[in-house]
Amino acid sequence: MKNIYMDYASTTPVDSEVVSAMLPYFDKKFGNASSLHQFGRQAHEALDTARDNVATLINAKQKEIIFTAGGTESDNIAIQGVALANSDKRKLPGPHILTSTIEHPAVLETCKQLEMQGYKIKYLPVDKHGIINLEELKNSISKGSFLITIMYANNEIGTIQPITEIGEIAKENKILFHTDAVQAMAKVSIDVTKQNIDLLSASSHKMYGPKGIGGLYIKEGVRLQPILFGGGHERGLRSSTENIPGIVGFGKSCELAKKRLNADCEHMKKLRDILIKNIVTIDETYLNGHKEKRLVNNAHFRFNGIEGESLLLSLDDKGISVATGSACSSKKLAPSHVLLALGLSAVQAHGSLRLSLGRTSTTDEVTYVCDVLPEIIMRLRKMSPLWVSK
Amino acid sequence: MKNIYMDYASTTPVDSEVVSAMLPYFDKKFGNASSLHQFGRQAHEALDTARDNVATLINAKQKEIIFTAGGTESDNIAIQGVALANSDKRKLPGPHILTSTIEHPAVLETCKQLEMQGYKIKYLPVDKHGIINLEELKNSISKGSFLITIMYANNEIGTIQPITEIGEIAKENKILFHTDAVQAMAKVSIDVTKQNIDLLSASSHKMYGPKGIGGLYIKEGVRLQPILFGGGHERGLRSSTENIPGIVGFGKSCELAKKRLNADCEHMKKLRDILIKNIVTIDETYLNGHKEKRLVNNAHFRFNGIEGESLLLSLDDKGISVATGSACSSKKLAPSHVLLALGLSAVQAHGSLRLSLGRTSTTDEVTYVCDVLPEIIMRLRKMSPLWVSK
Repeated sequence: MKNIYMDYASTTPVDSEVVSAMLPYFDKKFGNASSLHQFGRQAHEALDTARDNVATLINAKQKEIIFTAGGTESDNIAIQGVALANSDKRKLPGPHILTSTIEHPAVLETCKQLEMQGYKIKYLPVDKHGIINLEELKNSISKGSFLITIMYANNEIGTIQPITEIGEIAKENKILFHTDAVQAMAKVSIDVTKQNIDLLSASSHKMYGPKGIGGLYIKEGVRLQPILFGGGHERGLRSSTENIPGIVGFGKSCELAKKRLNADCEHMKKLRDILIKNIVTIDETYLNGHKEKRLVNNAHFRFNGIEGESLLLSLDDKGISVATGSACSSKKLAPSHVLLALGLSAVQAHGSLRLSLGRTSTTDEVTYVCDVLPEIIMRLRKMSPLWVSK
Repeated sequence: MKNIYMDYASTTPVDSEVVSAMLPYFDKKFGNASSLHQFGRQAHEALDTARDNVATLINAKQKEIIFTAGGTESDNIAIQGVALANSDKRKLPGPHILTSTIEHPAVLETCKQLEMQGYKIKYLPVDKHGIINLEELKNSISKGSFLITIMYANNEIGTIQPITEIGEIAKENKILFHTDAVQAMAKVSIDVTKQNIDLLSASSHKMYGPKGIGGLYIKEGVRLQPILFGGGHERGLRSSTENIPGIVGFGKSCELAKKRLNADCEHMKKLRDILIKNIVTIDETYLNGHKEKRLVNNAHFRFNGIEGESLLLSLDDKGISVATGSACSSKKLAPSHVLLALGLSAVQAHGSLRLSLGRTSTTDEVTYVCDVLPEIIMRLRKMSPLWVSK
């Protein structure tokens, strides 16, 4: 039985160097970073080093990074936090926040919540490849606009947005720019300073670090209000005893990402292109997302006449682990909001498959997937009421 | 050089059995619990087992537990969540929430935040041992009251509140009862069903589990609104990819706590009583908190004419790690709000020391501390402008 993991966009295994870096902090250097004694100081040093590792990867300053419990919390602190700090602007004409229709639920659901509190939100549509229209973004800005939140790269289809251009628009209009870079980190070279990014969300477990830890870059001078209250950790923005082993692991994963970015990207891109080249030769099979402006590890297809969940389970039977929609909502029956936003029908959206690669993916794995997929598609289509054979 | 850790109330080392239980979930069973494939199913099974372990320890049902990033988040979800679900009651006469003056900052700061949103909060005073007055609690309840939030045991002085009696009062008055049990877990036998507790906060790293993970017990039928928005994990109450290794570790720590509760308590109580018996014989030295109604691992003293931080650093020089105030605010210069609430002066509060024991504390460690403390106190008093020798 094969055991092929091709769902790295959902989560990644923790790198062995990361596990090794974390281990001493569980039972030896286990202090609380707030304590003044030697155990506490040791923990605090580890915290500083990790903060520096995260900052370095995106060209930020150490003090511009706060640690959170993950990407969802980072998005919530950024968006709720900026909205709370600008609540007086609700009186001005909106939209107050500009986002896109294909954001991660952590952004979309937070925006919906803010709408209930009187904030006006503009959900920018995307083209058939998943890219927002920069002119439309510019034209949508009004007097009350204070935040643009556009993801760096999409978690389902891998499309990369024109982040540098969005940063320029935000800067020209004196609006804050937040980007959910959970999928982009360790796959794209990010420079928050050059790209005029004011807030950036990252998640450790998408980049070979542990689960339960994330980061939020907050440009020096950006004001935001906390959503968790307590002991005042992380500059008062995220109260809670610091998760030192998690933070050390995330820091290490950023250090590795910096070192390995080019080699990893080259490797994943090569494998991704083999997948795409082979799989689109299957009858009535199409690539979702943009051909070039896509993450190096993302291959996303739709197969006419196929139900994605059956396909996922058939691949699972062959020892291949993949995703249909995004992992966060993969147990929901609703079609992917991202695929619908591209203009696909609910049926087309349900017939989609995401293959996402990682640092440790191999050519053999890719070859095996390319070999077994056509037979499975053929078999499923034979049984499918959706398929009309020609 | 000795290396004696006596600050278990601040954080604990992760038990080696807990580390072993977690390890496979970093790089082997690393799936996202939301995924449908084999890696996802494996993660989901681990999640269920851990949830069961946590529930079992406090006599709750598995589905009544949600996982959070720690005690602070649990407190925030419970208090903010219930307040948001009862926002219409702000129109009724308050207090809407009843709490005490000696709660952890995660509770107090959350309450202060809700006050700014129009909720009325009653902060019940405590007696000189740190115990609330049940008659005053009863008499403070009004038509608009919907939540009592009183900690199980205090994080600084270790005083245990009359939780069963508070649960009865809450039940009689049809008010929800939340307790921050972060310090009590694994040191007190808790039964949420018998004790009429509706919501209970727990933190893994205070009970030999990893940092960055906590739990919130929510009695079946209790309504609350989320404060983090996203993929809808944990019954929609706490969106974020589940931190499986952390959750597995917390589950294991609860399993161990259940097994070892009696033996651990007996061991810690014996050591605590040696500390108390010896240390109060030092001139002008007093025990803070209640003599009997206190955590088995907590010994908290005040030394007239002593500045706590100097004492902490002198002990640190001898290889003994202890705390002055609570860990969460130990870098703040303000005197402890808990000690002030007992009726101590700011000077007395600043002259206080917390020794907290753990599962792995030894008689030798306790003996050493009892041996070196009198000399240090004498030396510091000689240098202190606060000390008038008699």
